[in-house]
Amino acid sequence: MTAHTQSQLEALNACIAACEHCVTACLQEPDVQMMARCITLARDCADVCALTARLVARGSAHAASLLKACAETCQACAEECAKHEHRHCQECVEACRRCA
Amino acid sequence: MTAHTQSQLEALNACIAACEHCVTACLQEPDVQMMARCITLARDCADVCALTARLVARGSAHAASLLKACAETCQACAEECAKHEHRHCQECVEACRRCA
Amino acid sequence: MTAHTQSQLEALNACIAACEHCVTACLQEPDVQMMARCITLARDCADVCALTARLVARGSAHAASLLKACAETCQACAEECAKHEHRHCQECVEACRRCA
Amino acid sequence: MTAHTQSQLEALNACIAACEHCVTACLQEPDVQMMARCITLARDCADVCALTARLVARGSAHAASLLKACAETCQACAEECAKHEHRHCQECVEACRRCA
Repeated sequence: MTAHTQSQLEALNACIAACEHCVTACLQEPDVQMMARCITLARDCADVCALTARLVARGSAHAASLLKACAETCQACAEECAKHEHRHCQECVEACRRCA
Repeated sequence: MTAHTQSQLEALNACIAACEHCVTACLQEPDVQMMARCITLARDCADVCALTARLVARGSAHAASLLKACAETCQACAEECAKHEHRHCQECVEACRRCA
Repeated sequence: MTAHTQSQLEALNACIAACEHCVTACLQEPDVQMMARCITLARDCADVCALTARLVARGSAHAASLLKACAETCQACAEECAKHEHRHCQECVEACRRCA
Repeated sequence: MTAHTQSQLEALNACIAACEHCVTACLQEPDVQMMARCITLARDCADVCALTARLVARGSAHAASLLKACAETCQACAEECAKHEHRHCQECVEACRRCA
């Protein structure tokens, strides 16, 4: 595996973990109603990053298409999470931006 | 769920099942070497269809991006499978084309 | 594909779609705080059903282990959804019970 | 995230990448026929590890069931890969054993 692939996988895996944790933590917030959009976008982001990581790891011819879709979902998730001051949201912003 | 969504999910789910079955069956063929590219593309196709089905079912804002990527993987898989006369490949062609 | 496998896949796919829809619909409810546990369990249920469907479709030696884990997640999701009168929850209960 | 969770995720993610790479590399071997069982088991292992990592990252109540199923698939994949001297198989053995 090249250093570039390794670095992509690390960013994708960190983003998946941050999004999964963010969804779980958002669902436990007292202001969960305000977090609904955040949950929605982090759910999508984790799923798209997870498939992208698989295609990157296997050297798929379709990895490029997924990396593009993945940049969109990461961007959308980061923008929404950035509106919230919760620590899990801020960590998610950072992971999504690095990944995008 | 609208009839359109229902119909998309049926095509996606049929394609996932056909691709999964095609990979398994290809691995049991005596000429497995000739099936390597077919296995590779059906593996990608099943994975991309599976994520697309999830995003369609949840009404995701990112479903459109994935549907586009999915059409590409279905097209690529159908083209390769069409070169083989095995019944599992022919069934896979049909499911992929309907899905694409 | 045997009729038994076909019937398993139909139940699994219906359950995935019902859970995905239930999560999205719960996040739009005014009483989303009350739905947090429902969202949590439907998220798990959709993911476990999705992997199970893949392993069943490919005739995996590990399908049995996953079917067992899947029955647990479906059961847990059905129990929680049954506490809510929303139509999407009731549809999810039915799909989960059939699947379990 | 606890150090234990972090360590589980690292082992799972390393195993997913090793299995994905092993499948791709096996499909390019001249003796692909001999690698069919290896491909089959690594395909399952990557999929089960991927779901397990998601459930662990989100702190799911169902993570324990999946960790158990995951240990089985890792064990099975490691046993098969250990029969082959290809470097990608040996790397896969190591990642699967650490993960199991």
